[in-house]
Amino acid sequence: MSVIDTVPSPVRLSAVAAPGQPEPTPALEKLYRGFEEELLVPLWTEIGGLMPLAPNSKASPHLWRWDRLLELADEAGRIVPVGRGGERRAIALANPSLGGRPYATPTLWAAIQYLMPGEDAPEHRHTQHAFRFVVEGEGVWTVVNGDEVRMSRGDFLPQGGWNWHAHHNAASKPMAWIDGLDIPFAYYTESQFFEFGRDELSQAERVAPEFSRSERLWGHPGLRPVSQLESTPSSPLLAYRWVDTDRALTEQLALEDEGHAATLSPGHAAVRYTNPTNGRDVLPTIRTEMHRVRGGASTLARREVGSSVFQVFDGEGCVTVGERSWQVRRGDMFVVPSWVSFQAKADAGQASLDLFRFSDTPIFEALHQQRSEVVQQA
Amino acid sequence: MSVIDTVPSPVRLSAVAAPGQPEPTPALEKLYRGFEEELLVPLWTEIGGLMPLAPNSKASPHLWRWDRLLELADEAGRIVPVGRGGERRAIALANPSLGGRPYATPTLWAAIQYLMPGEDAPEHRHTQHAFRFVVEGEGVWTVVNGDEVRMSRGDFLPQGGWNWHAHHNAASKPMAWIDGLDIPFAYYTESQFFEFGRDELSQAERVAPEFSRSERLWGHPGLRPVSQLESTPSSPLLAYRWVDTDRALTEQLALEDEGHAATLSPGHAAVRYTNPTNGRDVLPTIRTEMHRVRGGASTLARREVGSSVFQVFDGEGCVTVGERSWQVRRGDMFVVPSWVSFQAKADAGQASLDLFRFSDTPIFEALHQQRSEVVQQA
Amino acid sequence: MSVIDTVPSPVRLSAVAAPGQPEPTPALEKLYRGFEEELLVPLWTEIGGLMPLAPNSKASPHLWRWDRLLELADEAGRIVPVGRGGERRAIALANPSLGGRPYATPTLWAAIQYLMPGEDAPEHRHTQHAFRFVVEGEGVWTVVNGDEVRMSRGDFLPQGGWNWHAHHNAASKPMAWIDGLDIPFAYYTESQFFEFGRDELSQAERVAPEFSRSERLWGHPGLRPVSQLESTPSSPLLAYRWVDTDRALTEQLALEDEGHAATLSPGHAAVRYTNPTNGRDVLPTIRTEMHRVRGGASTLARREVGSSVFQVFDGEGCVTVGERSWQVRRGDMFVVPSWVSFQAKADAGQASLDLFRFSDTPIFEALHQQRSEVVQQA
Amino acid sequence: MSVIDTVPSPVRLSAVAAPGQPEPTPALEKLYRGFEEELLVPLWTEIGGLMPLAPNSKASPHLWRWDRLLELADEAGRIVPVGRGGERRAIALANPSLGGRPYATPTLWAAIQYLMPGEDAPEHRHTQHAFRFVVEGEGVWTVVNGDEVRMSRGDFLPQGGWNWHAHHNAASKPMAWIDGLDIPFAYYTESQFFEFGRDELSQAERVAPEFSRSERLWGHPGLRPVSQLESTPSSPLLAYRWVDTDRALTEQLALEDEGHAATLSPGHAAVRYTNPTNGRDVLPTIRTEMHRVRGGASTLARREVGSSVFQVFDGEGCVTVGERSWQVRRGDMFVVPSWVSFQAKADAGQASLDLFRFSDTPIFEALHQQRSEVVQQA
Repeated sequence: MSVIDTVPSPVRLSAVAAPGQPEPTPALEKLYRGFEEELLVPLWTEIGGLMPLAPNSKASPHLWRWDRLLELADEAGRIVPVGRGGERRAIALANPSLGGRPYATPTLWAAIQYLMPGEDAPEHRHTQHAFRFVVEGEGVWTVVNGDEVRMSRGDFLPQGGWNWHAHHNAASKPMAWIDGLDIPFAYYTESQFFEFGRDELSQAERVAPEFSRSERLWGHPGLRPVSQLESTPSSPLLAYRWVDTDRALTEQLALEDEGHAATLSPGHAAVRYTNPTNGRDVLPTIRTEMHRVRGGASTLARREVGSSVFQVFDGEGCVTVGERSWQVRRGDMFVVPSWVSFQAKADAGQASLDLFRFSDTPIFEALHQQRSEVVQQA
Repeated sequence: MSVIDTVPSPVRLSAVAAPGQPEPTPALEKLYRGFEEELLVPLWTEIGGLMPLAPNSKASPHLWRWDRLLELADEAGRIVPVGRGGERRAIALANPSLGGRPYATPTLWAAIQYLMPGEDAPEHRHTQHAFRFVVEGEGVWTVVNGDEVRMSRGDFLPQGGWNWHAHHNAASKPMAWIDGLDIPFAYYTESQFFEFGRDELSQAERVAPEFSRSERLWGHPGLRPVSQLESTPSSPLLAYRWVDTDRALTEQLALEDEGHAATLSPGHAAVRYTNPTNGRDVLPTIRTEMHRVRGGASTLARREVGSSVFQVFDGEGCVTVGERSWQVRRGDMFVVPSWVSFQAKADAGQASLDLFRFSDTPIFEALHQQRSEVVQQA
Repeated sequence: MSVIDTVPSPVRLSAVAAPGQPEPTPALEKLYRGFEEELLVPLWTEIGGLMPLAPNSKASPHLWRWDRLLELADEAGRIVPVGRGGERRAIALANPSLGGRPYATPTLWAAIQYLMPGEDAPEHRHTQHAFRFVVEGEGVWTVVNGDEVRMSRGDFLPQGGWNWHAHHNAASKPMAWIDGLDIPFAYYTESQFFEFGRDELSQAERVAPEFSRSERLWGHPGLRPVSQLESTPSSPLLAYRWVDTDRALTEQLALEDEGHAATLSPGHAAVRYTNPTNGRDVLPTIRTEMHRVRGGASTLARREVGSSVFQVFDGEGCVTVGERSWQVRRGDMFVVPSWVSFQAKADAGQASLDLFRFSDTPIFEALHQQRSEVVQQA
Repeated sequence: MSVIDTVPSPVRLSAVAAPGQPEPTPALEKLYRGFEEELLVPLWTEIGGLMPLAPNSKASPHLWRWDRLLELADEAGRIVPVGRGGERRAIALANPSLGGRPYATPTLWAAIQYLMPGEDAPEHRHTQHAFRFVVEGEGVWTVVNGDEVRMSRGDFLPQGGWNWHAHHNAASKPMAWIDGLDIPFAYYTESQFFEFGRDELSQAERVAPEFSRSERLWGHPGLRPVSQLESTPSSPLLAYRWVDTDRALTEQLALEDEGHAATLSPGHAAVRYTNPTNGRDVLPTIRTEMHRVRGGASTLARREVGSSVFQVFDGEGCVTVGERSWQVRRGDMFVVPSWVSFQAKADAGQASLDLFRFSDTPIFEALHQQRSEVVQQA
């Protein structure tokens, strides 16, 4: 049985003596038995948990070390085949307080995916939105609707829902990367569709070009092909290359040095990956950003509605999530639950600490539920 | 312990011989132990449940009879006080396959609320969006930000998140109505805030006027006060009166009789409650509509992403939800889970079957995840 | 020759001695002759007129008396037939400083239209947006796409571009009303299309019902037919009745009396006619509003980008437009040019002064060019 | 007197015998005298001109040769100083049928601007939207709100309304470029504001950097600074460099060669300059694009609502505007009036014909008035 199954259980109510609760009497007990029979639950026994003063996340702050993820993925690479049915050799972070389910946070899936030399992951499509981010390695191409997208260190590949996609490893070495999706959100809201595609890629899809067609059409700053004027919910640009991201972050810090407003706070540069058709997030449900904290500097401590997953791209430093703190390095992944504060500090001896981040914030912005605040530091 | 609490459980994985699954071997078992230690879950054991071909709702179709709801609410009226802490004498529908939690569907809360003569429900506010709908009775006023809104049969009262509100029963009889909220969605996505207000209403808030200030400002068709030009996420109009709703439905059927396009399908009229500042749904997360099926007519059978709760406002007929069918009458409530088909048929001897409906559709429209289809009938 | 024709004239430049102008020399004269030959004009001779510090309207404040308009329309009713070619017995206000062209302001057309008993104005459609407003009289129906819309005192009938329309007078007396259109704007921007329709209405279009189908579908506050969910640039509601407008204004003043924020300024109530599909203006290029100034009260003096035309609907008072002031009464029409201040004062002995207003403001809001300010009063 | 002044003329009406016109009788003449006295104009004498079946532009197709523009600008450079009052050494195209006014089309201003070595054009700001495009030359920097933007061949510099700006020529040679603005539209709609700035730039504004701060912040494909999340009506990216534009066009033609959809029609590539905050046009009232027609290929013949101005950036070919055709080469400018067809053909011996284009289309799209169609070719 899968870890996500829930055993249906009947309504169970008990009268207790507590502030705000009705007196436990035989009449109340009888009423509660009536509620149970009719499948009813009163608000007054549940309001504290259901309607807290502020989000009180079921998820915990937690850190996964990249070396262990890689070690286990590598072992899986040797003994678990990739093919139709299992679909992908992807191994998901399971937040320690979400019941053993493969949820990094209540809404977000984060997994390491691994492909051996010459292997293919078969084609499928689903309405869940997805992206890939490459912390190290190269050699794999993701084929989206027949368009081959190279994956190299620092590259970010968004992939909006309902696009056909497959992967192939064209190199002589295994390659790992991370996948982010809104699988838990789609599962919870029961809004997902899935379809199997072809079992094999064509030869034309194994050419392994340096740039995808999507980049050649869309990867020019502020320039839009006149043949493609529709605004699309997800980005038509299928790769955001590290060379561009790095230059953008470098320039923000340089502008700060020259006295101009460009950073989020002193020493903290950040870019958001956006959909060139509308300037908004690349995916309707997932926000993705790259943050750079200058060596010795810190971000502000902030908390916000919604949850995030981070992966350290480069550098070393210390991150604090609520009451937890960890010294982190390349590849390490950690989660920040809803309304829990987050702060990062780059080690002084480093050029910078670079953090890739994804979050469910677009959901809350679309529904006018977003809130955030800077938390006073001790 | 509250019914909504989850016991954190560790990751538990077992190797099984099944299509699409890796061969159960000692090496695989060892790998799975490694996953458990590191809080990891592979996609290949979960994909069938997590990523189904189409939504496969955890919720079940279910019907609650109004006479039993009213009976239990009345009993609660006699023995459960209303006051600070419990906040409301509200009793929620608990879908039989959602683990005993007070969720009509995975995203929606539906409750009967009950107030005795002279009683007050104390002031509070929360970011969860809410509405009231009155299937019968009168005498209660909801006070929203100091504006008193009368509640009478057929009236619909939306109340966007974060507005102060209280209720008072100014009559000599108890009154019941239904509340709809997005409590489960907000709980799941961990995006909710709550604040207690004043314990007592002022005398000025007990005048019990026929029309609220919001209606006097906003309740004129197509006319907007020039002093209020901002578009707001929730409707500033706090009551939609039955006389208007009834006339709108009557006119749709009359136009159909005269040969003009006005109904959804023959004999099926429907109006959506909308926010006059932007023409969209009255609440960012909840759609609300009134449907009228002419005696002897049926709606089309349809299914759509997202879940609904219905209450029969008037008339009698038969409703079919997936494989279940019920003969229904005034006040009965039932749920339609995501991607389960729904069809209603009004009894032939009736003028019409009137159904109030609320659903979570705005969430999916905002996130570009909406799908619906007419289902072929046998 | 039509009054709107322009005689093409060649470029003519002359060198003058003036601040900011180059020295008039033979070399400059030679340069200017070169410009003329090549159809060129320098900025430096034109910048003062072309790029003023603030809008400096070519239009003048002006008042037209209703009794004279009616008198001339009545005379036209006797000697000018209505039919295909001339299309309408409409007589337009020609602003005194716009060169004799039929433009109330640079962008707006305002005319009195007149129909004799039993007369029809033939069907046509055009992309120019239009409305009718009835200051007095009754008996005419406007037929829009086959839907008959009654016209009575105080009624406002918007009609978005490219809808077929005709008029018929079903009464035994002549009737006058005003038409407002964006004809000058469309003419200037060269964006208009026109098509002739049927020469005769059918008998089914002469039934003269009390309410149009559009009102029966759309004229219910906050209620939208579920069969009509598209947002449309122009309002699908084809009549806004005086009874609703009057009640909305009355309530604003009553709310003010009770101490609540509802008016624009003390004693000044106003409603905007809006498109129920999106809460915005009824027409993409024309804003329409009804203002009520309580007897003895004044509006604030304001000026804004864009021009307006007013018609006095009821009451008496004094209006001030820039440096001009007039005592006005029912039916009088006047224009407020761009960036010229406007203020109205209702006579003390009156219940109120009611002013219908239309303006080109949506153009500037759509293009992010809108500005307005309260002008300090002496 | 400036060429744009209009002599106010009174209303003049004459009765004529013509189809659709009332019979010329003494009574009609008397009626017309009444109209004249009261400043009224009937629709029936004007409808043919005012409300044509389709746009019938007052502007004419016309071509200006770059060598003559440059020659005259150079002469102006020697004898007309640049400074406060005249503000800019800009020389505007005056469409031959727009009465000698400096309007390339009814809505658009197009001018050659010229700056001598070491010269400054003083700082000012205006609500009119502007851009610069450089067909050849270099050495000038535009300083926008203190940010220095280099201008080199092929570069496009948008500049939204109400930003402070000045120019300085840091080179030892004169430089010419073209300016495009919505001056005629703003003048006609009377919506413009203007303010003088500092007379002198600071030394810090004469450093002449290779890239402006705006490019360093915004010039990265799909990447947005997290410190700048507001959507702005005009683009915050102040330069779009030729290297990017050229590569985007080259890739479209290469993709076409490889069999993929990327061009507008065979051999016709085009990019639109867009605002990275929302994916829309760089300016609210002006659309700007670069088109490339492969040697020997043609564009489709199209016409659309609204007018355009083109400048040949490179290559040679033949352009056809309505009934006119010209053989064109680098720098030549021509206008396409509203609803007049346009087609370009690149000479066969050429790599390509590159055409820079600007138009007033965003006005019509914002107001839902846009139409276009492919015209059948003979």
